[in-house]
Amino acid sequence: MRLKFRPVDASFYDLFSESAAHLVVGSQLLAEMLGDGGDRESIAQRMRDAEHAADETTHAIVKRVNSTFVTPFDREDIYALASALDDVMDMMDEAVDLVLLYGVTTLPAETSEQVEVLQRCADLTVEAMPSLATMSALDEYWIEINRLENAGDKSYRRILANLFNGDYKAMEVIKLKDIVESLEGAIDAFERVANILEQIAVKES
Amino acid sequence: MRLKFRPVDASFYDLFSESAAHLVVGSQLLAEMLGDGGDRESIAQRMRDAEHAADETTHAIVKRVNSTFVTPFDREDIYALASALDDVMDMMDEAVDLVLLYGVTTLPAETSEQVEVLQRCADLTVEAMPSLATMSALDEYWIEINRLENAGDKSYRRILANLFNGDYKAMEVIKLKDIVESLEGAIDAFERVANILEQIAVKES
Amino acid sequence: MRLKFRPVDASFYDLFSESAAHLVVGSQLLAEMLGDGGDRESIAQRMRDAEHAADETTHAIVKRVNSTFVTPFDREDIYALASALDDVMDMMDEAVDLVLLYGVTTLPAETSEQVEVLQRCADLTVEAMPSLATMSALDEYWIEINRLENAGDKSYRRILANLFNGDYKAMEVIKLKDIVESLEGAIDAFERVANILEQIAVKES
Repeated sequence: MRLKFRPVDASFYDLFSESAAHLVVGSQLLAEMLGDGGDRESIAQRMRDAEHAADETTHAIVKRVNSTFVTPFDREDIYALASALDDVMDMMDEAVDLVLLYGVTTLPAETSEQVEVLQRCADLTVEAMPSLATMSALDEYWIEINRLENAGDKSYRRILANLFNGDYKAMEVIKLKDIVESLEGAIDAFERVANILEQIAVKES
Repeated sequence: MRLKFRPVDASFYDLFSESAAHLVVGSQLLAEMLGDGGDRESIAQRMRDAEHAADETTHAIVKRVNSTFVTPFDREDIYALASALDDVMDMMDEAVDLVLLYGVTTLPAETSEQVEVLQRCADLTVEAMPSLATMSALDEYWIEINRLENAGDKSYRRILANLFNGDYKAMEVIKLKDIVESLEGAIDAFERVANILEQIAVKES
Repeated sequence: MRLKFRPVDASFYDLFSESAAHLVVGSQLLAEMLGDGGDRESIAQRMRDAEHAADETTHAIVKRVNSTFVTPFDREDIYALASALDDVMDMMDEAVDLVLLYGVTTLPAETSEQVEVLQRCADLTVEAMPSLATMSALDEYWIEINRLENAGDKSYRRILANLFNGDYKAMEVIKLKDIVESLEGAIDAFERVANILEQIAVKES
């Protein structure tokens, strides 16, 4: 019965952990960027470096899935998970990039709530990755990510409503809306990661 | 020849019908929201409830596809169809949400054309779902959805052009553009549903 | 060993070449639209025709993949490639459409850089398609598309920054941002095409 004891390429798990670890770095840089007093040019450069490193990890996963005969779970789930993790990074990178590009100096206070949600999501995701190998303990992770996503959504909607309450000029609204939408997009992407992990766990259990 | 008379899990069809039925409710709430005299807070709450119910149906489809050995048609088509139906709901929910969030009281007249298209699409889609089991009579449905999508696109483009004709301030344009884009997105999502159904019919015929 | 000498449906390659050829036409129309002195209504009409022709090619690919028993490479890769090529066309069509719809007469100078990138990408992609059959010589193509995408991204970011430097009114920013985002979206879609081709080459080699 070779099906039962098939050899699997364990290093997929390491690559996914590496991918999640990039998101912890990214969310920290985001917090620095939105905080006071940092050198924004330098933070944005470090974010670009983190985004390139994340790209390379994604690329390594895709190369391996294409050249490996037996994968620890379905190929399409590996692609989906790698690509969802990559989406989180892209959205965080975009947020940092737009802050610099648009020359925004003050952000609505609630954006710090969005960034806190992102930092918590990154921490939980990096902790959840080793569970991929054993398919254990993913329930709590999944519930907590969903709770965080809801909290993030509330912040996002409050910011949007405030942007239109008359305090901001149209030009500011255009800029800030893009930035908070990137942050919200990164949170949504974390939820997609959690949903894919749940789906893999259901299939494999 | 068990291949020919394979047992299939018929309740997939019921779940897809349920999913389409949520879209009929959603499109009606959208019509109420954009009409006059409704209690917008209460309509938005009912829309959120409808969106949650739709989420649960999608979740039930995904759980079943992951835990069922034989599916009535390809797994990836089941995912694609469930997710396209879910996209329609998300876009309609977003439209209702933005009307409330942005505090918009008057919408361009042509948005009612978009909503009529959405209501027709929802009715046609719920009627088409039982044909999934027999793969019959999908041609007319597909042609009619495409005709409606074209009509919706014309309305959308007319609204966009009008938004920039000088009658609106930039701040209003930002708000209204988001709302009509959500409506157009919901119509496009209905077309995607029709395309996936056509693809399934071609494969299975 | 029938696996080695399996009969393949060679015309998939022809259809992909046809699909890429539509993009050359599209990028030329885009250049005309953004240049001076053309009849914009007529250019936009020819773009719509090109977009319909591209749709028909995509449809032909999907029909064939669904009705063919043996495909030259994985079904999901055929779908992904067809759909990525189609995305390029949709984004170029959207850009032309918005120029007309928004009544924009002058575009930021750097948009011509974006269009040059698109024309080069279209030429390279149509040249790369015959390599699908032999899986040769894709490396140079892939590297050059990535170089072009980087150049396009730099132009895009310079335009965005300029839009907010105080020379433009909010209303103009809303219009121009949509147009340059469509152009950037088309360039990104070309990069996705290149990534899918690379992935197919890795799998098949």
